[in-house]
Amino acid sequence: MPGVGRRTAERYAFDLLLEWKKSEIEEFAHTLSELKSAISQCQECGALQEGASCPICSDGARRKELVCIVASPREVFAMEATGEYRGCYHVLGALLSPLDGRGEELLNLPKIIRRIQTGGVKEVILALDSTLEGDATALYLKQELENLPVSISRLAFGIPVGSSLEYVDGGTLARAFLGRAHF
Amino acid sequence: MPGVGRRTAERYAFDLLLEWKKSEIEEFAHTLSELKSAISQCQECGALQEGASCPICSDGARRKELVCIVASPREVFAMEATGEYRGCYHVLGALLSPLDGRGEELLNLPKIIRRIQTGGVKEVILALDSTLEGDATALYLKQELENLPVSISRLAFGIPVGSSLEYVDGGTLARAFLGRAHF
Repeated sequence: MPGVGRRTAERYAFDLLLEWKKSEIEEFAHTLSELKSAISQCQECGALQEGASCPICSDGARRKELVCIVASPREVFAMEATGEYRGCYHVLGALLSPLDGRGEELLNLPKIIRRIQTGGVKEVILALDSTLEGDATALYLKQELENLPVSISRLAFGIPVGSSLEYVDGGTLARAFLGRAHF
Repeated sequence: MPGVGRRTAERYAFDLLLEWKKSEIEEFAHTLSELKSAISQCQECGALQEGASCPICSDGARRKELVCIVASPREVFAMEATGEYRGCYHVLGALLSPLDGRGEELLNLPKIIRRIQTGGVKEVILALDSTLEGDATALYLKQELENLPVSISRLAFGIPVGSSLEYVDGGTLARAFLGRAHF
């Protein structure tokens, strides 16, 4: 598990052995074994779903012409938590990383291209990391999608909300200056 | 000194006593005593200057019609380090903070208003912290300046450069979405 080393694993094991009731452990084990069968990825957008229907794709109130492209289902949750976004998603599944041997065959591209061509998508929003892999993936997607009848935007770069300028690095400050908006 | 507690101060004192030559200490002491007389704040913009002339105000290559409003001379250095900004500055000296009793009389407002009215300033860029004090000051400045013939912009909010979406808070993600730009 992420962040769990040998000593923490020992603490978990002793807690299970000494503090949990047998019935509680059995319930926990049962939930774990059901996890993979109960939760799957939507065939259309790649977001997580419980059961056979995706809560996002099947939500009639969502704007189908807006598609947010994210790397993993985790970011779908993060975007949903902002409460600002009411469009749909496309989960790439990975970011391009030639060094780790992750190439464009992993990005589910045919699916999003088909959605753009048939589904009336007007804007795709790239919500990708501001890292080497994120930037490479954004450029690759731009190149693949720019001949399609769709507008491509990317999340803004700038000062994190709540942050003092003193702690902001020079690259971020430069992007925040270049991206300054009428106030 | 910021970040220096009792133990670090002791280490400095012992280093001075045991490792420094007498001549080195005298030179250091001399430099310190000259600091305040050699470096002052520009009467016009409030940035730091060595000698009587401000290196920014007196630089003919700078765009006088662009004024970046910052809280302290420290932020002038930060903006200069980005290499992107070639306009002038106005240093407020403080941010508004009613709780700490810091009010608008500290912001050097008459000076910037006079510069806008007489100096051909076309755009002021608010480069202020994204904190309660920074936001309050930005709103106050907007209110005071919006009837003057000047465009007011603020540094962009969004994802810090180099950062993974996983570590970005919801508020920042929401601002990055709302401020998304054509890519």
